[in-house]
Amino acid sequence: MSRRATLPDVSQNTLEPGVRDLLGLLAYAQLLAFDRMAADARLAPDLHRRAVLCEMAAVEIGNYRQIADRLGELGLDPAGTMAPFVEALVEYHEATEPTDWLEALTKAYIGDGIADDFYREVAASVGPVDRDLVLRVLHANAYDDFARDEIRAAVAADPKAASRLSMWARRLVGEALSQAVRVAEEHADLVVLLGDGGAELFDRLKQAHGDRMAAVGLNN
Amino acid sequence: MSRRATLPDVSQNTLEPGVRDLLGLLAYAQLLAFDRMAADARLAPDLHRRAVLCEMAAVEIGNYRQIADRLGELGLDPAGTMAPFVEALVEYHEATEPTDWLEALTKAYIGDGIADDFYREVAASVGPVDRDLVLRVLHANAYDDFARDEIRAAVAADPKAASRLSMWARRLVGEALSQAVRVAEEHADLVVLLGDGGAELFDRLKQAHGDRMAAVGLNN
Repeated sequence: MSRRATLPDVSQNTLEPGVRDLLGLLAYAQLLAFDRMAADARLAPDLHRRAVLCEMAAVEIGNYRQIADRLGELGLDPAGTMAPFVEALVEYHEATEPTDWLEALTKAYIGDGIADDFYREVAASVGPVDRDLVLRVLHANAYDDFARDEIRAAVAADPKAASRLSMWARRLVGEALSQAVRVAEEHADLVVLLGDGGAELFDRLKQAHGDRMAAVGLNN
Repeated sequence: MSRRATLPDVSQNTLEPGVRDLLGLLAYAQLLAFDRMAADARLAPDLHRRAVLCEMAAVEIGNYRQIADRLGELGLDPAGTMAPFVEALVEYHEATEPTDWLEALTKAYIGDGIADDFYREVAASVGPVDRDLVLRVLHANAYDDFARDEIRAAVAADPKAASRLSMWARRLVGEALSQAVRVAEEHADLVVLLGDGGAELFDRLKQAHGDRMAAVGLNN
């Protein structure tokens, strides 16, 4: 299986500060994203679209498995490593429960998009094995195109959808930021990974988010 | 990707009677099994077990994709092919919603086990391309061992669990049979695939079910 062949080199087992936190956070984020996307798929207007969101969810659980395997190699218990992040992530999802199909897709596209950018930034400062793992599991895949196309078409067809989804996206970002601040406060090692370029990081995240919004016709 | 490489040979596209029904039924069964297992995973007592049930669910959606691809090759619309089976399968799942982790696992092990045996029997009389596809997607995988080990351990530790889960398994089989009868009544082409060995088929299903029950210490 090709997934096995690309698993991290177990010889590089020195655990850098913050890596445990990054992997635990990301593992639980993927597990919960699976759970929420699988549930959100019920909002789909037809069986084809429903199946596509189920398949997006399945990618997340495959990612979870890769991170859990890496934690195992590092001698860490995945459940224990994820535990400190359960509350923040559950709260994010409970505050952003979609009520229809377009909200669900916007959450997958905008919410996961900004979270992934953040994980990518953090990963940039860890060793190559874990950096490659994190970059590999982040969702630059065909499903993003599906979400983007669906939202863009809905927004083009109905200006009211644009304003409603723009507000929804602002709420997603607000909730994500508020939980990110909380995680940062509780996990100093993660913040260390970000170095002292905090302001520039924030600018980059904002820029990429704005690009995503514009790509589907939403107002930032 | 290896999955691609083993996809059915598109040159064998002659559609036998009943094959459309078999593939539609199985596709929707997998899509719904994904949905229900993903939801049932919330009943898990810990994050490790939860992740395993999520991974079992992800296998189902991978199977769905293989069947949907085959329907596409045959020039059939997956959604339209599944539609006639939605009601029966939804009713089965609504009548058998697990209330705890052991009920969820027993449903995956006993309920899916008897359904898989049935699909295997039907598949035996279709052409090689679709027969191989059906056999490939049926869940003879490592996750069955997980469910079996969990149920066996719970039953060994607590005789009350044995009697409660035995009753639950009887309910699962009763609901499955009642929906199977309904599907058979509504889809004569599927019944044709079974030939005239109905009584022997029923005996084989009963025997295999009894073996599964005995393997985990439940009373048939």
